[in-house]
Amino acid sequence: LGEDWSQTPDQGALLGLSGTRLWVFAICRDPEGWRQLKNLVSRHPNLVIIALEATDPASIKAAAARVEEHLKGSGLNLLINNAAIGNNGTLESETPENMSLVYTTNVTGPLLVSQAFLPLLKKAAQGSNQKGLSCSKAAIVNMSSEGGSIQNVFIWHLGQAIAYRCSKAALNMLTKCQSLGYGGDGILSIAVHPGWVQTDMGSFTAPLTVDASVRGILNVLPTLSEKDNGAFMSWEGKVLPW
Amino acid sequence: LGEDWSQTPDQGALLGLSGTRLWVFAICRDPEGWRQLKNLVSRHPNLVIIALEATDPASIKAAAARVEEHLKGSGLNLLINNAAIGNNGTLESETPENMSLVYTTNVTGPLLVSQAFLPLLKKAAQGSNQKGLSCSKAAIVNMSSEGGSIQNVFIWHLGQAIAYRCSKAALNMLTKCQSLGYGGDGILSIAVHPGWVQTDMGSFTAPLTVDASVRGILNVLPTLSEKDNGAFMSWEGKVLPW
Repeated sequence: LGEDWSQTPDQGALLGLSGTRLWVFAICRDPEGWRQLKNLVSRHPNLVIIALEATDPASIKAAAARVEEHLKGSGLNLLINNAAIGNNGTLESETPENMSLVYTTNVTGPLLVSQAFLPLLKKAAQGSNQKGLSCSKAAIVNMSSEGGSIQNVFIWHLGQAIAYRCSKAALNMLTKCQSLGYGGDGILSIAVHPGWVQTDMGSFTAPLTVDASVRGILNVLPTLSEKDNGAFMSWEGKVLPW
Repeated sequence: LGEDWSQTPDQGALLGLSGTRLWVFAICRDPEGWRQLKNLVSRHPNLVIIALEATDPASIKAAAARVEEHLKGSGLNLLINNAAIGNNGTLESETPENMSLVYTTNVTGPLLVSQAFLPLLKKAAQGSNQKGLSCSKAAIVNMSSEGGSIQNVFIWHLGQAIAYRCSKAALNMLTKCQSLGYGGDGILSIAVHPGWVQTDMGSFTAPLTVDASVRGILNVLPTLSEKDNGAFMSWEGKVLPW
């Protein structure tokens, strides 16, 4: 479910819990090639794999239609925008093509996916008895990065990653805008920094295991409420500076 | 010299002061059509008009070559990245095409222009007797907007302007990266919010005249030093939150 530290858009993932039965939709670019997910499906019958390419608006709409069909009138409670790419372009070497590709994947992708799944999120919010905002009612979680913190400029000494940093700062802005635009619909929006994780993108030298990062995020999400709407938070629940 | 609140890239402007004689290069997409600039040239023989389209890498390189030719071995002290576009796309209506166009103009443009003019900025810094950083030694001024402040979300009630806000947050990140990457070369980088100005983009209902905004910025620039490198500052010299 990780980001891809390369030039090509990676398997992203968005997960949704919905209805009286809990469904999880694992969404990726190439479901056939994703053996790990297939293994999970054999053990978890409530997991559904759906294809989605975050840079392709038609593919996003098709995925939303498939999820809607599957939910049979129920809403979607949680949307996790996880697809992202990155690389180590410097101020000197960064190209317009790479700036565009990274932005389209990391910012426009989450915008379009949120647009497509908004009716299902609204349905979940409208059907909920809960007051205020929460991830169990209706929420958009944008997987950002402390690399997008303009204040902190996380691990600059290890890589300038200009296109990536600019895209994540922009994603944080999108998250803030979504919190203002969708809060009234009962949908919480938040940007999460998963830590520097041992994935293909983070490399094996990263300090954090995938398990520790995911467990941390899963601990944080249920604690979120209205006061956290539009925040930028780490996998440990620490508020990060923009 | 204003931004264009429309779908098409506007006349941007970057100005440079250089050498023992002060030259100002007014750079715009369509110099033939820019009557106001021609009028200025007739009154100010040190003003040179040069064509540049911020979304076209070849045009940027050609403009840098023309400026270099004109400077006859001198450096360039001040680069103002002012070209930008925007519109009022909402979370619901924003399109991938508009996200791309606004980002390419407002973020990739300043990145590429800075790359192209970097040798001339370095030359100015190397030829200067001044210690530390300053706009009279060598500087990149990126015209940002408080619309890019994730913390403040400036005048949200008047327009969501998603693509624009995301692009300006990303431009602020680029500015911070440039401050880290170019500070060692003696080049100061700063993001400036010009205020909400009575231009085609700001409309006549804006609270600030062009004169007041430009005078404010011209008062602020000479006060900048090393401690301001990478900051986000208003036309009045107030530091703004990311």
